[in-house]
Amino acid sequence: MTAIFRNKVEAAIARVETLPEATRRAIFTEFTPGRIRAEADGLIARREAGEDMPLFGKLVSVKDLYDEAGQVTGAGSRLLASRGAADRDAVAVARLRKAGALMFGRTSMSEFAYSGVGLNPHHGTPSSVLASGVIPGGSSSGGGVTVGMGLTDAAIGTDTGGSLRIPAAANGIWGIKPSQNLVDSTGVHPLAPSYDTPGPMACDAALLRQMLEVMADTNLSGTAPHPLRLAVPEAAFTDGLSPEVEALFSAEEVRLRNAGHRLERVDMRGIGEGIGLNRIIVSVEARRLYLGDLEKLELIGDPRVLARIRFAETLSENQIAEAYAKRAEVVTVFEQLMNGFDAALTPALMQLPPNIAEVEADFDQLNAAMLRNTSLVNLVNGCAVVMPTAGLTPSWSMTMLVGKNRTDALLFAAVNLLNGADETV
Amino acid sequence: MTAIFRNKVEAAIARVETLPEATRRAIFTEFTPGRIRAEADGLIARREAGEDMPLFGKLVSVKDLYDEAGQVTGAGSRLLASRGAADRDAVAVARLRKAGALMFGRTSMSEFAYSGVGLNPHHGTPSSVLASGVIPGGSSSGGGVTVGMGLTDAAIGTDTGGSLRIPAAANGIWGIKPSQNLVDSTGVHPLAPSYDTPGPMACDAALLRQMLEVMADTNLSGTAPHPLRLAVPEAAFTDGLSPEVEALFSAEEVRLRNAGHRLERVDMRGIGEGIGLNRIIVSVEARRLYLGDLEKLELIGDPRVLARIRFAETLSENQIAEAYAKRAEVVTVFEQLMNGFDAALTPALMQLPPNIAEVEADFDQLNAAMLRNTSLVNLVNGCAVVMPTAGLTPSWSMTMLVGKNRTDALLFAAVNLLNGADETV
Repeated sequence: MTAIFRNKVEAAIARVETLPEATRRAIFTEFTPGRIRAEADGLIARREAGEDMPLFGKLVSVKDLYDEAGQVTGAGSRLLASRGAADRDAVAVARLRKAGALMFGRTSMSEFAYSGVGLNPHHGTPSSVLASGVIPGGSSSGGGVTVGMGLTDAAIGTDTGGSLRIPAAANGIWGIKPSQNLVDSTGVHPLAPSYDTPGPMACDAALLRQMLEVMADTNLSGTAPHPLRLAVPEAAFTDGLSPEVEALFSAEEVRLRNAGHRLERVDMRGIGEGIGLNRIIVSVEARRLYLGDLEKLELIGDPRVLARIRFAETLSENQIAEAYAKRAEVVTVFEQLMNGFDAALTPALMQLPPNIAEVEADFDQLNAAMLRNTSLVNLVNGCAVVMPTAGLTPSWSMTMLVGKNRTDALLFAAVNLLNGADETV
Repeated sequence: MTAIFRNKVEAAIARVETLPEATRRAIFTEFTPGRIRAEADGLIARREAGEDMPLFGKLVSVKDLYDEAGQVTGAGSRLLASRGAADRDAVAVARLRKAGALMFGRTSMSEFAYSGVGLNPHHGTPSSVLASGVIPGGSSSGGGVTVGMGLTDAAIGTDTGGSLRIPAAANGIWGIKPSQNLVDSTGVHPLAPSYDTPGPMACDAALLRQMLEVMADTNLSGTAPHPLRLAVPEAAFTDGLSPEVEALFSAEEVRLRNAGHRLERVDMRGIGEGIGLNRIIVSVEARRLYLGDLEKLELIGDPRVLARIRFAETLSENQIAEAYAKRAEVVTVFEQLMNGFDAALTPALMQLPPNIAEVEADFDQLNAAMLRNTSLVNLVNGCAVVMPTAGLTPSWSMTMLVGKNRTDALLFAAVNLLNGADETV
């Protein structure tokens, strides 16, 4: 087992080293083979000493928002790239290391985690692993790519409006926005505390759950009833879909009905109308974090991100108060609508991931479109798994299962039921 | 059983009718024996027809914030007392009626539910049932008194900063602030949507749980480990206690340690420092609700409440944004501090309930003191049970057990363990 592990690590390092320099920089903000080999040696020594390490053998890439002792947490920015190295690992990183996971490089991201497509003008933007020139999804862009390439088994990132689920969708892998505060965020650089949620992406559902269990230091085993009672939202999540996504989602509904599950349409108009609240709340909280740095960001920041931060400056006290109060109301409405359902079934994205060039030409509209469905889950304070869609080529992960806050264990149980034969747990 | 029920109802009505008019008005905003008898007849008919009604025989008073079909929801105010009758029951009321509970009068409250002591200049302020001239606690003041008097078995109210728990403390009964959104709030008049939480007070722990299960339409059975692992907060909840409360709480700690439970001090400085955030958030959200009525409230409102609403007018965008963002951070900190604990043990109040006359002379300071500990639970998005303190005369309920969001079932299980011989579940 330890020899296989050493070979796996060496093969992965070799693969990164053969990548063109620009590609490597667009995926990793930091990649240091010497450090990785030393860590692997340490894990092997612990293993040979008989330590029980449930994640031994797993390679995990780390979004540039997580503190790792001795490394710089740059948040995909030039502003923070020059600060000192972190003193200690983020809590989630420490737990993963303790469980035997090998941290395999720090991955690229949208600056400050503040966009859903994955563009980054400082280190470049990697393509989706499924289609050259297509966005990788963001903000945890590099992480989605490392898993999609098969370079790492899993990746850790954060999700404030979809940043773990859009890269999962765009790279055909599994991603979860856990319930907020399920994972201790100590040592994870913030964007908007009302929404920020650390969590994993992974190559399969079983590892996704295992990663989250370790990161959250909790057990997420649960049972789900068969048939599942699934809400299919109307007037939110399913309006404005592109024809491709509309067709895919209809096919998925048919597949699940045929498998005996009970799907019921639920009018979620009140949820859909809340979509503008996130833009206000995230901007207000992000501006608070970078208030002292705005002039510097005019010079060295991503102008798209700075515009989103500065949006808060156009808001009055009443608009800000209204946004927070309405958000609380929307959470209440959602929890009430979900009574009697195990989860809601929605498309992960409104449209298939667009080309990087299209997004560069029309950032605001396409970024908003990429974030629409995933950010509604943050709005309602839910949890959600994005998973590969059966029979789709290329295999974007276009299906999202959404649960109420703190129903993560039920969500994993439901995911297993939905994926029947693919179940590996 | 039905004859006993009829006698119980008649005895309770007779007792209300012997109250001095001013006392009755200070407890009930609406009390109509004819309506109550007609409802009781309906319940008896259902019972005789064999319907299973788990709450049959229980009398429940209703805070003037809950819609009841055909009655006016006045929110303890003159502003709303003149509006039309509600079309239908609030969801929680409908569930209680379906379960066989008899709605026994509409109870008085602080205007708009916006204070913790229970003063109301429109309908008068009832005394605590434990001591004449002492505050009843608020905002669900009438409800706490009906249960404390033994007039009703339970009461329903709402808790935005302690409004179910302060009346429970001041009348020696049981009260719970459930996890937010556990009970559907449809048909319950709001104050601050970020915090508003409907729930029950009751004469014992078993009924408290049964009431909440019906109101939330859920099962709250759970198990708690023996010994319990209890966090005892420091630098929040336990600072600034009056000597009486300090002594009581120390005795309670000793009693629980002697019973074998594991109590561990936890520095909650970061939570305590957040106490000012609630004042900002509740004011901002309340002002939004009454924005069109402020001039009218200058004429017919409670000036103390209006001052609390108008406090929001002194705040800048940055202060409002800061309050919401920091509140989210405080929730995160609390959930992290509580890892490894079943619940936190705290005093329900910083000091024993003061006299009404004292509060009238020094409203701001004493209202803030009454709300301090309970509102910290709303701040951290937790749930909490206030329960009678062993061996205390008069028997104020000065012990509070606090859980993380959505740990209501664990909280009830822990309450049962703590109360050992008193357990009735």
